[in-house]
Amino acid sequence: MRAVSRASKNMPAESSSNPQNLDAEDFQTGDDRKSSDANAGPTLSRYGERFSVDSGILELMQDLDLALNASGGENQKEYLMLGGGNPAHIPQVEAKLRSAMQALMADGDRFERMIGIYDHPQGSTDFRRAVSELLRSSCGWDIGPEHVALTNGSQSSFFQLFNLLGGESRDGRMRRILLPLIPEYIGYGDTGIAADLFESLPPRIEYYEDRTFKYHVDFDALEARLRSSNSGGEVAALCVSRPTNPSGNVLSDADLERLSDLASEAGAPLIVDCAYGLPFPGIDFSGSRPFWNSNTIVTLSLSKFGLPGVRTGIVVAHPEIAAGLRRMNAVMNLASGGVGPALARDLVRSGEILDLSRDIIAPFYRRKSDAAVRIFHELFEDLPECRVHRNEGAFFLWLWFRRLPIGTDRLYERLKERGVLVVPGRYYFPGLLESSQAPDFASQEFIRSHPHECIRISCARPEEVVSEGLSRIAAEVRAAYHDAGA
Amino acid sequence: MRAVSRASKNMPAESSSNPQNLDAEDFQTGDDRKSSDANAGPTLSRYGERFSVDSGILELMQDLDLALNASGGENQKEYLMLGGGNPAHIPQVEAKLRSAMQALMADGDRFERMIGIYDHPQGSTDFRRAVSELLRSSCGWDIGPEHVALTNGSQSSFFQLFNLLGGESRDGRMRRILLPLIPEYIGYGDTGIAADLFESLPPRIEYYEDRTFKYHVDFDALEARLRSSNSGGEVAALCVSRPTNPSGNVLSDADLERLSDLASEAGAPLIVDCAYGLPFPGIDFSGSRPFWNSNTIVTLSLSKFGLPGVRTGIVVAHPEIAAGLRRMNAVMNLASGGVGPALARDLVRSGEILDLSRDIIAPFYRRKSDAAVRIFHELFEDLPECRVHRNEGAFFLWLWFRRLPIGTDRLYERLKERGVLVVPGRYYFPGLLESSQAPDFASQEFIRSHPHECIRISCARPEEVVSEGLSRIAAEVRAAYHDAGA
Repeated sequence: MRAVSRASKNMPAESSSNPQNLDAEDFQTGDDRKSSDANAGPTLSRYGERFSVDSGILELMQDLDLALNASGGENQKEYLMLGGGNPAHIPQVEAKLRSAMQALMADGDRFERMIGIYDHPQGSTDFRRAVSELLRSSCGWDIGPEHVALTNGSQSSFFQLFNLLGGESRDGRMRRILLPLIPEYIGYGDTGIAADLFESLPPRIEYYEDRTFKYHVDFDALEARLRSSNSGGEVAALCVSRPTNPSGNVLSDADLERLSDLASEAGAPLIVDCAYGLPFPGIDFSGSRPFWNSNTIVTLSLSKFGLPGVRTGIVVAHPEIAAGLRRMNAVMNLASGGVGPALARDLVRSGEILDLSRDIIAPFYRRKSDAAVRIFHELFEDLPECRVHRNEGAFFLWLWFRRLPIGTDRLYERLKERGVLVVPGRYYFPGLLESSQAPDFASQEFIRSHPHECIRISCARPEEVVSEGLSRIAAEVRAAYHDAGA
Repeated sequence: MRAVSRASKNMPAESSSNPQNLDAEDFQTGDDRKSSDANAGPTLSRYGERFSVDSGILELMQDLDLALNASGGENQKEYLMLGGGNPAHIPQVEAKLRSAMQALMADGDRFERMIGIYDHPQGSTDFRRAVSELLRSSCGWDIGPEHVALTNGSQSSFFQLFNLLGGESRDGRMRRILLPLIPEYIGYGDTGIAADLFESLPPRIEYYEDRTFKYHVDFDALEARLRSSNSGGEVAALCVSRPTNPSGNVLSDADLERLSDLASEAGAPLIVDCAYGLPFPGIDFSGSRPFWNSNTIVTLSLSKFGLPGVRTGIVVAHPEIAAGLRRMNAVMNLASGGVGPALARDLVRSGEILDLSRDIIAPFYRRKSDAAVRIFHELFEDLPECRVHRNEGAFFLWLWFRRLPIGTDRLYERLKERGVLVVPGRYYFPGLLESSQAPDFASQEFIRSHPHECIRISCARPEEVVSEGLSRIAAEVRAAYHDAGA
């Protein structure tokens, strides 16, 4: 396979080699990123060549498989898995889902229809109707099934949405997806059919006494950016995750309204990725409200409710956007999977999905996250440069080791050697400028250092795993500061 | 939504309007293909704009949903569905699949793991190991799990493969997917991220006394085309479906070997789409053998075995291609669905999937197809211009109404009014040249007429549906010839 050495523009790594060349299986016939012999394999398209190097999301998912599916063969090592986004096994939710499958199998030929018939390319009409009725009644959104499109999971939603909207336009101009607040979800990076699809703005950072911090949208910078867009027309859409993956930040209702107004003024849709958020699975501790309007595209998912294996993404958007997704989905996937919609249908129809989200899932992860934050504070008490982002939703801790003498790629490697899997921070900064292009010193400094000083860890694992993992992280971080005489 | 009037280069329709603007639901807020007001919706990317018109595969899947899922609301009309590729409900297979799910649910936490854990981005390692061991032992293919990549169904396999290999290359040249024998699968069209990704060659047609006919690869034309490629380097891959969807043609072992040799010489992989074929679901009545080598990419699927709803595609390829698919799949889908691999695992491990294919599925569809051919001959006896392709595999009849005075788009509409859904032929000719560019008169004539003289019908539906549907088709076709005084 002809390989390219991609200069990763968005992610200025400390070295050009990828520190995360980890395969769950040792089946690679050679290091295809070193091969330069064109005869060694097929020639790839320019687009395909981008996949001859590894992406952050690939590494993350391989780590996850390595730890959770135990498929690595004989030399399987035990890992403390704090790296992935797999939801926890919550007994009450699992019991409901098992009951739902039993009920489905007992209900005439529903099982046979679920596995044996292709759904509509926009997704099961029954399920879309149930979703739209639930969102109408519980959130007051003025929608019908025509506003809903199903995909094979949120990642597939993003791939389709970002490329439907962003990229080269008819007149040849490049129109980008603007991320008004980074760090932002690792899975966005590399989804662009066009290279450099993303553009992102550094946050304002608020510091608190208790060694926590919080990112805020820099609305001055955003408004300046959108004013330049009004002449240039280069912003295809704005996109935020809420809660933010990785930081656990939740944009306030007021900030989201303001983003929505700015997006409307700029003539660009606002994508709000609610994979972890409202109204389901509802892992939001901030008291914020669900948000949608006809210029907003909300992406939901059944994964964090407890169904990552069935791959069901739900997009709520203007019917013309939903129709565009239907058309793309037919070409890319024929139809989306029928199992998730069939299994969750009655939970949606009855509204029980909201009850479970509010009464079981959100409190479960809140306990997990709060416990992890407590453990962090205990373990890092003597390390004043170490902070944790305010924990407002989702199930991650976003840790910031300011002035850490080694980058977090290196830290990732050392932790992996010690049996702890985390995700290094730099993958969460898609579309960030080179620091030399940043407008001011603060931004330059942020771009240069921040991506290499943060890691994301999951709190969804059992408390003893999180606790032992954090303990090993603290030891490595302490050693890193110490070795450098800090 | 800004709409483009796409001149469909590959499919020279008789009029520029799309005759199949059929929505399973009447929820469209307006005809977005007529809208020219850029303010009416978001601006799309150049790539996204291609999805503001409908594709053949979209129409086909919407028709399918309309007829099978009965989700069209109150004005639901009863259709005789001969249009889609949905497999039949075969009681013995359905019973096995129900048992498999029951066994899985009774086996500790396997159900919870299936729904609750993301699989590896290349697909469940357990399942890939089982597939590779089965193919090793039953077909003699020298492969391991590293040769296998799972996707969310064959359509997703094609999207990924065609764009990994074909499109603009690093040096800016366009490299196409060459279809050496058309008609070819409707779902290939529109999968290209690059426009005009396909190039195809008209077949040689063999006529038989019994009013059947058969397509053959025109190897002279193919060799000439590949010689020009050796200087131009423009062929990214060759691709054939076997059995061919739509025609039910099966390339002989000798022809496939010859294609494979030519592909190797041209330095291009040969993709063999076995969605209906060998070794499973094995709907091949021709006595041919499974085929793979390290320059061949075989795509398999669980859909026609009876599991279209779980969306599981299986690609067997050189490990470097499989690794490329893993990387693309992580970015496009995070992971593929876990239900298909979990449900089918033991059927693959035990080899029972082959027994069911050989003993139940293939004979079932053979009976269906043979019956449909018999009915065709009875009903069309007085129409000497009407022929059916030799029925060597899959579960379609490919009917050719030579010199039909109306195109089959028009026929499709008339049949739909009479409650019969079929697929008009022109969608099965992706990458066909304009007739004016064809090298000889026979090719020009083929390109101009053949796509508009054929239809595909499914034999997978109950015999009375196929019989009544064929009867109405015969009546419409007879009327069309008659009205024109033929």
